[in-house]
Amino acid sequence: PDVQSTLDKRALPIEQVGIRGVRHPLTIRSKAGNFPSVGTFEMDVALPAHVKGTHMSRFMALLQKQEQAVDSTTVVALVRDMLPLLDAKEGHVQFTYTHFVKKAAPVSGVESLMDYEVTWMATAKQNATGETNVDLGLRAQVPVMSLCPCSKEISEFGAHNQRSHVTMTVALDSATQMTVEDLVAAAESEASSELWGLLKRPDEKWVTEHSYSNPKFVEDLVRDVAGRLKAEQRIQSFVVEAENFESIHNHSAFARISHKK
Amino acid sequence: PDVQSTLDKRALPIEQVGIRGVRHPLTIRSKAGNFPSVGTFEMDVALPAHVKGTHMSRFMALLQKQEQAVDSTTVVALVRDMLPLLDAKEGHVQFTYTHFVKKAAPVSGVESLMDYEVTWMATAKQNATGETNVDLGLRAQVPVMSLCPCSKEISEFGAHNQRSHVTMTVALDSATQMTVEDLVAAAESEASSELWGLLKRPDEKWVTEHSYSNPKFVEDLVRDVAGRLKAEQRIQSFVVEAENFESIHNHSAFARISHKK
Amino acid sequence: PDVQSTLDKRALPIEQVGIRGVRHPLTIRSKAGNFPSVGTFEMDVALPAHVKGTHMSRFMALLQKQEQAVDSTTVVALVRDMLPLLDAKEGHVQFTYTHFVKKAAPVSGVESLMDYEVTWMATAKQNATGETNVDLGLRAQVPVMSLCPCSKEISEFGAHNQRSHVTMTVALDSATQMTVEDLVAAAESEASSELWGLLKRPDEKWVTEHSYSNPKFVEDLVRDVAGRLKAEQRIQSFVVEAENFESIHNHSAFARISHKK
Amino acid sequence: PDVQSTLDKRALPIEQVGIRGVRHPLTIRSKAGNFPSVGTFEMDVALPAHVKGTHMSRFMALLQKQEQAVDSTTVVALVRDMLPLLDAKEGHVQFTYTHFVKKAAPVSGVESLMDYEVTWMATAKQNATGETNVDLGLRAQVPVMSLCPCSKEISEFGAHNQRSHVTMTVALDSATQMTVEDLVAAAESEASSELWGLLKRPDEKWVTEHSYSNPKFVEDLVRDVAGRLKAEQRIQSFVVEAENFESIHNHSAFARISHKK
Repeated sequence: PDVQSTLDKRALPIEQVGIRGVRHPLTIRSKAGNFPSVGTFEMDVALPAHVKGTHMSRFMALLQKQEQAVDSTTVVALVRDMLPLLDAKEGHVQFTYTHFVKKAAPVSGVESLMDYEVTWMATAKQNATGETNVDLGLRAQVPVMSLCPCSKEISEFGAHNQRSHVTMTVALDSATQMTVEDLVAAAESEASSELWGLLKRPDEKWVTEHSYSNPKFVEDLVRDVAGRLKAEQRIQSFVVEAENFESIHNHSAFARISHKK
Repeated sequence: PDVQSTLDKRALPIEQVGIRGVRHPLTIRSKAGNFPSVGTFEMDVALPAHVKGTHMSRFMALLQKQEQAVDSTTVVALVRDMLPLLDAKEGHVQFTYTHFVKKAAPVSGVESLMDYEVTWMATAKQNATGETNVDLGLRAQVPVMSLCPCSKEISEFGAHNQRSHVTMTVALDSATQMTVEDLVAAAESEASSELWGLLKRPDEKWVTEHSYSNPKFVEDLVRDVAGRLKAEQRIQSFVVEAENFESIHNHSAFARISHKK
Repeated sequence: PDVQSTLDKRALPIEQVGIRGVRHPLTIRSKAGNFPSVGTFEMDVALPAHVKGTHMSRFMALLQKQEQAVDSTTVVALVRDMLPLLDAKEGHVQFTYTHFVKKAAPVSGVESLMDYEVTWMATAKQNATGETNVDLGLRAQVPVMSLCPCSKEISEFGAHNQRSHVTMTVALDSATQMTVEDLVAAAESEASSELWGLLKRPDEKWVTEHSYSNPKFVEDLVRDVAGRLKAEQRIQSFVVEAENFESIHNHSAFARISHKK
Repeated sequence: PDVQSTLDKRALPIEQVGIRGVRHPLTIRSKAGNFPSVGTFEMDVALPAHVKGTHMSRFMALLQKQEQAVDSTTVVALVRDMLPLLDAKEGHVQFTYTHFVKKAAPVSGVESLMDYEVTWMATAKQNATGETNVDLGLRAQVPVMSLCPCSKEISEFGAHNQRSHVTMTVALDSATQMTVEDLVAAAESEASSELWGLLKRPDEKWVTEHSYSNPKFVEDLVRDVAGRLKAEQRIQSFVVEAENFESIHNHSAFARISHKK
């Protein structure tokens, strides 16, 4: 008796049903070469009102076959394969992983890795003619440095500064050529300073002086990044959020802008 | 020189700017009496395109004055007071805290506290005539027990079960009489079993047998709770999500239904 | 049939068995007055090799009776009451909660609450003559500001700074008069600057300039706090740790000193 | 002026100073083949009383060179290389990562990955004759299923069960042949049931019935795993802890045994 396939009489369709918190080893493809990472996956489908349950084990079966190097095309392929396998007309796949970029320090040029939390999201819908369209989304959380303009302005010397997170979520064409590195650059170029894993003394001097010369409120940070994303033609809509882990308080300042083109 | 009040030329309004992650001691008002808790607050306003920055310290100044026992009216009052203080036409306040309910065990009647993570949210908007309207929201995360119908059906004896979270987010009239206890009941009544802090042996027997007699897929859980919320006239719209921390896997099963009346 | 009380033949005593992650509402007693909070409790006993199991529900039964204002004496009383109730010769109780202190800003004197994560720990042992001794411990995590001496030294202007956590764990006499406020002061007085919830403009100027005039490496921070704790006669032994959430990197610098008098 | 190398007069040696929370991409070597993962590193040295500070950037410089497939020998090599680079006589390296093991389901034999949180720890000390000795440690957190013997005993049908974590920390000879898979097996073999990522219906029946036939209190779990570790000659000392995320409560039951051979 296949309990999940019996008729359901509650007249309530389910928008999303599936699995969450599944960790899977990943080889990430990037322009600078492949690197290892771990993805945390969420996979779900829409369930019509008359169907009692989905087939949970099929999500895992699909994910287990994923062994090649991944990028945006992987999440699109996964969600396309998922619909027929789950007998579904709508579905969604997303995975979050740590993305690494090798960066050169600003003065010494010494190289080290920076880490970013990145999420790829894809939603597939089958239309009346049986065609499947996929909406693609990308989120990157970029750690940067922010230095307070008010603190600089009112003080004889110094200015409080801190680590901040700029989180951008953007809608892309599913055949996009946009990379994680492109998106990260939008946040790093507008912060008081970007961060590096390894800085030698001349680099630390540069970061200190550069951030002091480039103060930004959380409002400036979110507006300046939003300006960049607005001008970027590959992005269809976006949400950008900045959070400053204030060094003078035990709480955060934050700001948020969303935009649809 | 008031840096925050200078003219901004980027033509980008900010939807939300404010503070986040602020912890504040709270006395919570409930029908069964007041109890102590701690709230984590988020307070923000909308900033028009031509204004450079908000007045961050005023959010904290407002919160520091909050010393009375709180319930839904507190978050509504806070957001109403916030708009003129921040020179804003739109604003939002929310706080998350641990809610406690004294419950009697099902057989022995022994009493103990159950804990729930609860969030009150309020958004205020001033219209053209200067009137301020407030939208009120309530979220409760209710830990319950779910027992798998498939596992029960196919097995000679036993059935896997686990802790699950049912998370309901509902829109309410800002003068609502709906309580946290009312909302929690919608989830507890539809689970394989509700939970208690303290169970004696006859209670443990009851919970074991009751849940075995009352198996629910994550799909059933989310639909049955949605059915309750749909029938509740004080709720204007809702999102309900269920997550099962599967005892046979190292990941979760989840489902989600949203509804607008 | 009382399964837990049957004879166990594995010849393996258990050092700790009990409950963990239990949230309970608390009224905290402090010199400046009582305030509401929430404790997360861990309660456990030692189990001799021949006993199969402990009585889990008795821990909860004991905790449910806790309704009075709490301080260090509460955790000592709880652990003393626990031993006979659980038929144990050794036991341990600890709870972690958010402690609030009302502080005046350094220039304006405006008052606001600062929040600290605090843990009280008590271990009771019954000796051969039936007497029970209790060891008392206190941990406080104090958020402060640290400003980098190297960055200041090498830069024409500015210096990177950030939020840091100073975590002190100290052993006290169980009849101690030492308060959380006393311990917190040891960390705040040795940081580049302490933090406040609410700062007006003249206060922000003071914090900026004070921290710039008072740079500290993570090594300095941990040594200077250790020096204070060493000189404090009410403290029998301690561990102090400092972690800087570096504003120029996406990782922390940390240091640790332990000391037994 | 090299601030970090100036003479320190506080007469306080620092046991550990270094970096924490550094994420680094890793290729993990295992018997079944290499797989990708991400490590979170902590690297620190002991600092004598007369030295003001360590050289923070050298930890990162060392880590950046780490590009080969890793196992226990990697952490030993890292800590050995670290001492001369940091001019230190004692040092410590540890990293935590997600370990994956391909497992076959118990009846269908279908293969899927299980994920475990694993930590390698190494502490190096240089003795008076200039020789460096390394102590090696391994920790694995193994998610399993536990089924309550009391619930089974007292109930007409069913028994509550839940996900549990068995966490083992073991001291090993630095030239050990012990693998993560060996250690994981000690916990999985003693649980009510081990877990799998992917189970077909006959597998789910097997897990349900197997766990029902194999009930374990948290005390049994911790004792039975301790028994295994005690008998394992490659392990010099251990701590084992079990935590049950109780399906009938909103808190955990836990137990802990430590043992030195």
